[in-house]
Amino acid sequence: MRLVIGNKNYSSWSMRPWVLLKHFGIPFEEVKLRLDFAPGSDFYRRLAAVTPAGKVPVLLDGDLAVWDTLAITEYVAERFTQHAIWPRDVKARARARSICAEMHSGFTALRGNCGMNIEARLPEVGQRVLAEEGVRRDLDRIVGLWRDALQASGGPFLFGEFSAADAYYAPVVSRLQTYALPVPQDIADYMARVWTAPGVADWVRDALAEQDFLDFEEPYRASRG
Amino acid sequence: MRLVIGNKNYSSWSMRPWVLLKHFGIPFEEVKLRLDFAPGSDFYRRLAAVTPAGKVPVLLDGDLAVWDTLAITEYVAERFTQHAIWPRDVKARARARSICAEMHSGFTALRGNCGMNIEARLPEVGQRVLAEEGVRRDLDRIVGLWRDALQASGGPFLFGEFSAADAYYAPVVSRLQTYALPVPQDIADYMARVWTAPGVADWVRDALAEQDFLDFEEPYRASRG
Repeated sequence: MRLVIGNKNYSSWSMRPWVLLKHFGIPFEEVKLRLDFAPGSDFYRRLAAVTPAGKVPVLLDGDLAVWDTLAITEYVAERFTQHAIWPRDVKARARARSICAEMHSGFTALRGNCGMNIEARLPEVGQRVLAEEGVRRDLDRIVGLWRDALQASGGPFLFGEFSAADAYYAPVVSRLQTYALPVPQDIADYMARVWTAPGVADWVRDALAEQDFLDFEEPYRASRG
Repeated sequence: MRLVIGNKNYSSWSMRPWVLLKHFGIPFEEVKLRLDFAPGSDFYRRLAAVTPAGKVPVLLDGDLAVWDTLAITEYVAERFTQHAIWPRDVKARARARSICAEMHSGFTALRGNCGMNIEARLPEVGQRVLAEEGVRRDLDRIVGLWRDALQASGGPFLFGEFSAADAYYAPVVSRLQTYALPVPQDIADYMARVWTAPGVADWVRDALAEQDFLDFEEPYRASRG
């Protein structure tokens, strides 16, 4: 299998399936394309050769292209049933899928104001965007859904052992860190566990080593460092 | 099982699981809440009693709440394996999930400009919004992904027999009709098949009978008819 992704510092959607595959030790070849959303770019040209949807990530398995993180997650869960990609319990699995789908289509205020930028530290931006009600509401909901899941499972991850749900929220952990958004201690502890989990830690290490500043992903910085 | 939905004329997300359950003859009780996005509304109050996500649709099965259409679809597919909710073939299933997930997070120009409004006929609005490049791009992509699926499967539905993918795109069929967006004949034929399929036809009949004009869902009309 090959997984086509974008820049590791910025591409939150790419991060999810990459982290999931790494965490469970599923072998794959990484194909990284430098993000470039200009029409006719090399990024779009190379992507069009493998997926009609024109977005990263894409999982390639032989002649099959699977795009979009949720479809990739389901495909991996079906193909590698030896791993608990989703929780084994039917109710926990339904809840895990619910919060992943909720992330997939929602949290637009947080996502719009606090783009993933793993290497950056922008607490002053975080302070500023907290003035927006939508950001506060998104943050409250994230704290609430993490806490609900952790309390129901007993932790250490959302549904007990690390699952697709934690991989799905790993980029959110990054956003909360970059913008220093305030969370209660139990949530900070969960975030620390995610950040050091295998797979996540590997991605973060690569992202920090990347050092590829992309202007269009940087509304708040003029340069690195 | 109970399925909590919003107004049938407007709630495109509610339509998807309802149509799916009806099509496959899976029994459920419908709980319809009149849409009202004002803070503290009866809609939000009743919704908060069953789901922390605060959005329709929600599937209730005993004490389990499953929210968001994709999670509901997966739950139903797992619980009723006698039905081919997703295509039986692994590759077709991966493609079906890919286009559903693509819909779930994308097509923002079409969705923003052409809200579902089953009873309305707004061809002049359709003409106008086609001036926007984003709308044209979304329309092209929809025609392309329907055609790819129909050609690969041979039809009559996207992956042969009616599946979750057709239920997922049924609200898109409605939008293209309401706003009279131009499509090639093979695509118009597919749309006609969806529109008269069991489940979809039931929803449309109910939507037309509803006659509940909601101002905040009507950027283009001052009243019904």
